[in-house]
Amino acid sequence: MPISARNRMAGVVKAIEKGEVASTVKIEINKPSVITAMITKEAVDELGLKEGDKAEAVIKATEVMVSKE
Amino acid sequence: MPISARNRMAGVVKAIEKGEVASTVKIEINKPSVITAMITKEAVDELGLKEGDKAEAVIKATEVMVSKE
Amino acid sequence: MPISARNRMAGVVKAIEKGEVASTVKIEINKPSVITAMITKEAVDELGLKEGDKAEAVIKATEVMVSKE
Amino acid sequence: MPISARNRMAGVVKAIEKGEVASTVKIEINKPSVITAMITKEAVDELGLKEGDKAEAVIKATEVMVSKE
Amino acid sequence: MPISARNRMAGVVKAIEKGEVASTVKIEINKPSVITAMITKEAVDELGLKEGDKAEAVIKATEVMVSKE
Amino acid sequence: MPISARNRMAGVVKAIEKGEVASTVKIEINKPSVITAMITKEAVDELGLKEGDKAEAVIKATEVMVSKE
Repeated sequence: MPISARNRMAGVVKAIEKGEVASTVKIEINKPSVITAMITKEAVDELGLKEGDKAEAVIKATEVMVSKE
Repeated sequence: MPISARNRMAGVVKAIEKGEVASTVKIEINKPSVITAMITKEAVDELGLKEGDKAEAVIKATEVMVSKE
Repeated sequence: MPISARNRMAGVVKAIEKGEVASTVKIEINKPSVITAMITKEAVDELGLKEGDKAEAVIKATEVMVSKE
Repeated sequence: MPISARNRMAGVVKAIEKGEVASTVKIEINKPSVITAMITKEAVDELGLKEGDKAEAVIKATEVMVSKE
Repeated sequence: MPISARNRMAGVVKAIEKGEVASTVKIEINKPSVITAMITKEAVDELGLKEGDKAEAVIKATEVMVSKE
Repeated sequence: MPISARNRMAGVVKAIEKGEVASTVKIEINKPSVITAMITKEAVDELGLKEGDKAEAVIKATEVMVSKE
């Protein structure tokens, strides 16, 4: 099912850190570019996410800021 | 001033579409990967954003979802 | 591809209002409960969303607030 | 005081999980539909949220994505 | 009804700009500090927001970043 | 590098609470007004945030709601 979120970046899970309810997942998109996501631990468990998995970072356009050099 | 947002991706502004109050800015990160941001038109105007500008997409980790292949 | 977003609610598209860059989509989940989404017009166009379509509202848990009666 | 957030869904708190700073609250909207919120533990404590409480999930329209079947 | 959002700042509406579906509302919190909100035009209309109204900016803690000087 | 986020409020860090992956940072903007941010523990550590630091709360306009008195 396609989703309205404009941004998807494919990569590989490089690190997962689980807290009691929150977790961070690091996805390496292009060496050495890494995206950090903070999601629920429940989501990590339900997706069965582990290091080495192919995964995508998905981001709604309204959440993206722009910084000018 | 460094900011807590975990994710910054440098690229070049490829397209800007301005509505009356909202705008979308497309930043090409790596050919052909493009990030779409929806920000206020005011921000586009204040930053003086235009096609060809070097810019970064900045994203807070709590806004990133993970999709598993 | 499963996604980490905790919340999905299935329904039917009841109304779409398109601005120049932003759009609102109203999805009727359970009569008379309606969810309003503000997404890019580009997303509405790419998904080909129209009234009467089956669709889901998808929401990341970090975006949900709780109000107590 | 009315608020601009477009989406409110009334239900009953079914589960609360507290971490050190983050918490998840599950609100059953319509059996068996459950909304998961990740909020601060401080908010859970200040609202005095507990299982069985009547509560509402409140969501800003800009945070809602649309997925098409 | 109390809400989990950690941040409320009271002020006066100084400017409203309406697009077709999105709007910006500027609330002066403390002279000369102004908060800009992008919300749906529908919300502006339903709240009957106009310049001079007493209003509050409400922000969920997960949406706040920190920048260090 | 200027950023599109519309809202910056300068203050002093009054409290930091670190969980395993999430943290809350409280910035006193104007006595007694305090902004609470939930960010990753990693960000707190990388910025070297501690009580007494001068810091700014940074908030994207799309994340701000309006409540009318």
